[in-house]
Amino acid sequence: MRTFVVVGNLATTTPDFSLEDIPGTSGRLDILCRCINSAFVLSHGIRRDVEVYLILRKGPCPKTVHLLGGELRHLNPDERTTAALLKKALALEADSQWRRSTPGIFVRAGDLADLLPRGDETAYYLREDGSDHRGEALASDGTFVLGDHIGLSEEDEAFLEGLGTKTVSVGPKSLHADHCIVLINNELDRNEPIVRDGPVAPDEMGPRDERWTK
Amino acid sequence: MRTFVVVGNLATTTPDFSLEDIPGTSGRLDILCRCINSAFVLSHGIRRDVEVYLILRKGPCPKTVHLLGGELRHLNPDERTTAALLKKALALEADSQWRRSTPGIFVRAGDLADLLPRGDETAYYLREDGSDHRGEALASDGTFVLGDHIGLSEEDEAFLEGLGTKTVSVGPKSLHADHCIVLINNELDRNEPIVRDGPVAPDEMGPRDERWTK
Repeated sequence: MRTFVVVGNLATTTPDFSLEDIPGTSGRLDILCRCINSAFVLSHGIRRDVEVYLILRKGPCPKTVHLLGGELRHLNPDERTTAALLKKALALEADSQWRRSTPGIFVRAGDLADLLPRGDETAYYLREDGSDHRGEALASDGTFVLGDHIGLSEEDEAFLEGLGTKTVSVGPKSLHADHCIVLINNELDRNEPIVRDGPVAPDEMGPRDERWTK
Repeated sequence: MRTFVVVGNLATTTPDFSLEDIPGTSGRLDILCRCINSAFVLSHGIRRDVEVYLILRKGPCPKTVHLLGGELRHLNPDERTTAALLKKALALEADSQWRRSTPGIFVRAGDLADLLPRGDETAYYLREDGSDHRGEALASDGTFVLGDHIGLSEEDEAFLEGLGTKTVSVGPKSLHADHCIVLINNELDRNEPIVRDGPVAPDEMGPRDERWTK
């Protein structure tokens, strides 16, 4: 399972925002909506092997929204319908237990530190001055932590450093989180064995298709 | 200059669509809005060396909208404000001459065949069964043609073949056009010389930074 964790420093924890002005009324939930699109949306379907955690911090206490590719329904690629799904999730009461909002979308109270276990060796922090991810042999079941337009705080970064998280970058330009997710997904796609005609047992898988592993 | 050309087969040529339901009322202008975001938006600015042509085909006659990175203003990353800019451009009378709508956005009547010159050797057609773009040494001033959710027609493909366009793909999964643009931009970024402290003359540029050219 690929996991993306996106921190929304100013993102609202309440449903009191306007779908007519998402960037202006929700603390930039539009950024998180685009991250959801990048994480899950394929031309003809949803990535079932991906999950996303959104950390929303603007409110009395932080909330975490969990989107699970294998169970997601009603996900369209546009920002507005994704924001409407988040609005519904944020209308639920949130405590330390996960509550299901719509299929594949869950919410609870909690911040980044409640989510990531200490000692996860396949966690990566995406930052523009990290080492190039193409040289890192990214774990196929890795966890990728990204910040919104503000980025992560020194406290967040110290926490990730304590976990042993590797700091990686996707290229020479500083990009929005949603574009970084597209690039990470593509890199992991290229490293996967090619599976044709439905699921096969691991020992039936052929060698990696060299066309995609340059 | 990098050029992206995106064909919107069902995209409206009129401003009569609703910003409250862009996917449902505009013939999927939302796809084209996300392509604009992918083409231009950086973390802290706009790509000035990029231009985008949108081919809109739903209406009495096709229209082309041209967005020029070097002149663009008022471009925000969210879909709705981008759609509002397109709505303004589509309200203009369109004939064979380019007319400016807002800074960096121009419109005229015309289709794909009116845009691309015959014999352009640096034109690429993005299709899922093309050869891997990482092996192609993409031209830094290339033109990249993409289809919307429907793709290009056989007639379009025959036209591109007549131009000598190379068919390339971005990876093993079939992706939306906006995700393809992110991947092409990243590949071209990696091939660029690193320029620090403002513009320098070509002979002052150092060798390519090996960190980004793996």
